Amino acid sequence: MFAITAARSSFEDPLSALEAGERPDPEPRDGWTVVDVKAASLNHHDLWSLRGIGLPAERLPMILGCDAAGIDEDGNEVVVHAVVEDGGSRPTILSEKYDGAFAERILVPRANLLPKPPELSFEEAACLPTAWLTAYSMLFGKIDLRPGSTILVQGAGGGVSVALVRLAVQAGHRVYVTSRDEGKREKALDMGAYAAVPTGDRLPERVDAVFESVGQATWAHSVRSLKPGGAIVICGATSGEAPPAELTRVFFLQLRVIGSTMGTKEELATLTEMCARTGVRPVIDRVLPLDRAAEGFRAMAEGALFGKVVFTV
Amino acid sequence: MFAITAARSSFEDPLSALEAGERPDPEPRDGWTVVDVKAASLNHHDLWSLRGIGLPAERLPMILGCDAAGIDEDGNEVVVHAVVEDGGSRPTILSEKYDGAFAERILVPRANLLPKPPELSFEEAACLPTAWLTAYSMLFGKIDLRPGSTILVQGAGGGVSVALVRLAVQAGHRVYVTSRDEGKREKALDMGAYAAVPTGDRLPERVDAVFESVGQATWAHSVRSLKPGGAIVICGATSGEAPPAELTRVFFLQLRVIGSTMGTKEELATLTEMCARTGVRPVIDRVLPLDRAAEGFRAMAEGALFGKVVFTV
Amino acid sequence: MFAITAARSSFEDPLSALEAGERPDPEPRDGWTVVDVKAASLNHHDLWSLRGIGLPAERLPMILGCDAAGIDEDGNEVVVHAVVEDGGSRPTILSEKYDGAFAERILVPRANLLPKPPELSFEEAACLPTAWLTAYSMLFGKIDLRPGSTILVQGAGGGVSVALVRLAVQAGHRVYVTSRDEGKREKALDMGAYAAVPTGDRLPERVDAVFESVGQATWAHSVRSLKPGGAIVICGATSGEAPPAELTRVFFLQLRVIGSTMGTKEELATLTEMCARTGVRPVIDRVLPLDRAAEGFRAMAEGALFGKVVFTV
Amino acid sequence: MFAITAARSSFEDPLSALEAGERPDPEPRDGWTVVDVKAASLNHHDLWSLRGIGLPAERLPMILGCDAAGIDEDGNEVVVHAVVEDGGSRPTILSEKYDGAFAERILVPRANLLPKPPELSFEEAACLPTAWLTAYSMLFGKIDLRPGSTILVQGAGGGVSVALVRLAVQAGHRVYVTSRDEGKREKALDMGAYAAVPTGDRLPERVDAVFESVGQATWAHSVRSLKPGGAIVICGATSGEAPPAELTRVFFLQLRVIGSTMGTKEELATLTEMCARTGVRPVIDRVLPLDRAAEGFRAMAEGALFGKVVFTV
Repeated sequence: MFAITAARSSFEDPLSALEAGERPDPEPRDGWTVVDVKAASLNHHDLWSLRGIGLPAERLPMILGCDAAGIDEDGNEVVVHAVVEDGGSRPTILSEKYDGAFAERILVPRANLLPKPPELSFEEAACLPTAWLTAYSMLFGKIDLRPGSTILVQGAGGGVSVALVRLAVQAGHRVYVTSRDEGKREKALDMGAYAAVPTGDRLPERVDAVFESVGQATWAHSVRSLKPGGAIVICGATSGEAPPAELTRVFFLQLRVIGSTMGTKEELATLTEMCARTGVRPVIDRVLPLDRAAEGFRAMAEGALFGKVVFTV
Repeated sequence: MFAITAARSSFEDPLSALEAGERPDPEPRDGWTVVDVKAASLNHHDLWSLRGIGLPAERLPMILGCDAAGIDEDGNEVVVHAVVEDGGSRPTILSEKYDGAFAERILVPRANLLPKPPELSFEEAACLPTAWLTAYSMLFGKIDLRPGSTILVQGAGGGVSVALVRLAVQAGHRVYVTSRDEGKREKALDMGAYAAVPTGDRLPERVDAVFESVGQATWAHSVRSLKPGGAIVICGATSGEAPPAELTRVFFLQLRVIGSTMGTKEELATLTEMCARTGVRPVIDRVLPLDRAAEGFRAMAEGALFGKVVFTV
Repeated sequence: MFAITAARSSFEDPLSALEAGERPDPEPRDGWTVVDVKAASLNHHDLWSLRGIGLPAERLPMILGCDAAGIDEDGNEVVVHAVVEDGGSRPTILSEKYDGAFAERILVPRANLLPKPPELSFEEAACLPTAWLTAYSMLFGKIDLRPGSTILVQGAGGGVSVALVRLAVQAGHRVYVTSRDEGKREKALDMGAYAAVPTGDRLPERVDAVFESVGQATWAHSVRSLKPGGAIVICGATSGEAPPAELTRVFFLQLRVIGSTMGTKEELATLTEMCARTGVRPVIDRVLPLDRAAEGFRAMAEGALFGKVVFTV
Repeated sequence: MFAITAARSSFEDPLSALEAGERPDPEPRDGWTVVDVKAASLNHHDLWSLRGIGLPAERLPMILGCDAAGIDEDGNEVVVHAVVEDGGSRPTILSEKYDGAFAERILVPRANLLPKPPELSFEEAACLPTAWLTAYSMLFGKIDLRPGSTILVQGAGGGVSVALVRLAVQAGHRVYVTSRDEGKREKALDMGAYAAVPTGDRLPERVDAVFESVGQATWAHSVRSLKPGGAIVICGATSGEAPPAELTRVFFLQLRVIGSTMGTKEELATLTEMCARTGVRPVIDRVLPLDRAAEGFRAMAEGALFGKVVFTV
């Protein structure tokens, strides 16, 4: 079958490690099932894999892709939960230990399948299992924010940030967004953000919660933007992981810092239902056929996206 | 000033206890402030007061009305939180111990004022502090339901039920509604309910939570509609309070029954913000000038409403 | 191997359905393992099984017993979590679908084994997985009570009630106990209860939480004993399941009713550790060799126990 | 009346800023009441005040002391909650804005009084409102740890650390303690700690929660000692506030960092009751008459304490 593969790894030039071509069909495995992929979406995780981060050389070649929607062996339209629990010491994500979604077919544990609601297209459904699930779990699974709260999303444009803004607006929050890029700030406002300010600018008020994926470059601003008792929920640290921890502020103002990664299958089910029941749909930057996947990888590497890149099969 | 008053009480003919006319202006009180009422809304609580329930004879005459929006002494547009804490043994609601909102002016504790957002009219804001706050607190303050959950609202048409449906649809829940009245079921669907069924009909699936205000007539149906681990949140029992408790089902399926009444000032603030940030607006059945308040009371007594009755001053 | 079996069922004379004798050794099963039972303890569940409640005729004969401690195939001392998840529609307890603990050997899922701490004897450890785990989960897993809270345990003497009192005293709660039996009230005081009163007597103060297993006979008293916002946690209803639900009191005082049954494997692990780290030990009424199990069943049927009956193998 | 006062401030030589002598009696204030102090206890907060940290020059002279137990104007034995809410922008602690406890009499808001249980002496009760309340709130109010969990307390000997160990042992946790001082490690074992290791040594297992007051010197060890999903609860950072935040570990392992300072009046009430109901009593290093307070300050400045210093009046 046709597939997009990490054939080697290159930290400097990740795109050079990408290969498109024929791969053997998945072999049956007890408790697992094959899904005919209809659409799959791209994540930063895929770029990191090409750089060799999280994907050791002995596992290569590996079919990339965490996010898939398609049709199962019984003809049902399904979304695939990307977190695989195989009894190992910790769960992995599709394409870390088992071949991923950028292929005509993917083998996954039967328990990882969820019905795709008819209200969502395959392209839309394929955006949910990683970036959108991460955002959903940060907003609704890790802290208890009443609708109508005031929040800050650091960064605009990345898959998780866009999802955070869109979901938080639906939930009725007052959403501040920061970005260095004026175009991305305007797009955040179009999605319903209450205000969008340049990165690092002081907000006009303190917030109940900050949602972080930037890390070092925005950490001091995040800590200073919180009300007493407020929370920072963090799912990444793309600019660095070692800002000063500011412990005095943390204990004196009773702040909370809450780490978050991915989400549960139950959370993916309710996220999917939430999208089906409301007008919320993943923001898609572009849709490409799978054999042009390299174009999508390149756009992501250049930071030129607002929303998700989807590959159709 | 002009006001609508419970002059006496009559369980059989509550409307006969209603009087419209001049009442003395409120007198200053330390820590309290006067609001010029612009709009006030009607609740079942006002009818119960006319029947003598919760309003003992020695407190008569009492200006009725729990829900007010208006202008404070500094010219700010405000909403009034209806729960008064005066250091007594338990909090009371406006019109239980202190004169209420159906008047040109109302005296309230300064701490009970919240800013009215410009996005909401006085009529809309005046619907929030009792029925809508009760619904908001039931949905978002008493249990932890992720958006996209499946719920049942027993009864359609009452102020709290309408608010529950509208808020739950915005939150992305799959909302079932029951009603004996086909017209009200259709209106619930218009508000975004997923399905509306005749009272007592078996649902096509079990739900995560039931929202109850009916009580005895629907209790067995509510208990049987829950998934294992599900919750009934209850704010009233208009049809009776003494159905069998069904304790075996409660412990064996690990169900929860959660009583709820009104909400906090902080919840009213976030409810107001949620309305300002989204398209959610209180459903208003009719708006009447305060001197025609009796018409509104009559419509409520006849059960002929879908949404709130608002009086303007 | 020697085992104690429900050979038939008799609602009227459950002891007549009990048989002691040889049974085939367990057969190997993928993912399951055999434990050499050293001690097992008796629960009301075993009496109900003999009456045919929860144990249909087509599953007979069934080896009884939910609670076991022993030695696994690798020579480790273990406690067995009694809740079996086999992918069926709902979990079952040992002796409901799979043979139980009153035998020389028992076959259980490997995942159900927990290490027995050396601080606990086999007899003590064999008391934990059902009655004590139920109590532990009610106190520490279902509500959030700070140490030093005020609680009521309805009934004294039963396995769960004794465990509730003992664990709650260790946690620093002020524990009220009710019982019709003066001897049991005195024993509750010996375990550290703050006060023990005749069933139905009004308490000198209202409590934060009530722990119920009696049901109908004590329900009205439980509801009236709570502070506003208080909770009833219920794991059984031995006197009946259909008292009036008292819905007005529930919603007006914002009470909570929380159903609870058994507990998780993680809770059994921390319960075991809690016992190892403190002086808390299960209260054992008597220890009998397994071939005298009928004596223990008879004592339980007569209500003549304070604490657990343990069988040694 | 006789009192111990911060007469000036000296960062280098805080003891030089201490004065003992006559001060005017407190003057009546609406809603406040006078307590005849019977015992008061010393906290690091008092030393910081002498250094000028948290106590600006314009508020001097200030009677020191946060922790008091005594007799109120009606003759009741009381404990005083130290957090004063006077409608200012944030709450303060006794001796920050209002005169403190090291005096014959203290003026406090009436709402800050709690009954002292007869089971506790005045000396014991006077240890609870600051260090012990902080520890109680960290353990039981800020996270949800089931009894029998595994925890680490960084540092041994300080008032909060000793309280953490003592309360956690009562709760049935498996408690690891670190200290550079072998004598303090031995005392921690005497209090029931499971193991005590030199500061920075790797623990034999990962823990559910770490309790921090040391900060920079132990932060990396704290982060590495946690299980996935574990929590660090922090109430101070005596060795520095700016260790690297280790954000990757935080989000990838879904760790939580939870700031905590003091506790509520309700928490002080249940802490007091917990002590009354169990054998838990504050660990007192020494008791001195108030006129020898300087000796206690000196011992604390030298780090020579294990437990609290109490002054009697």
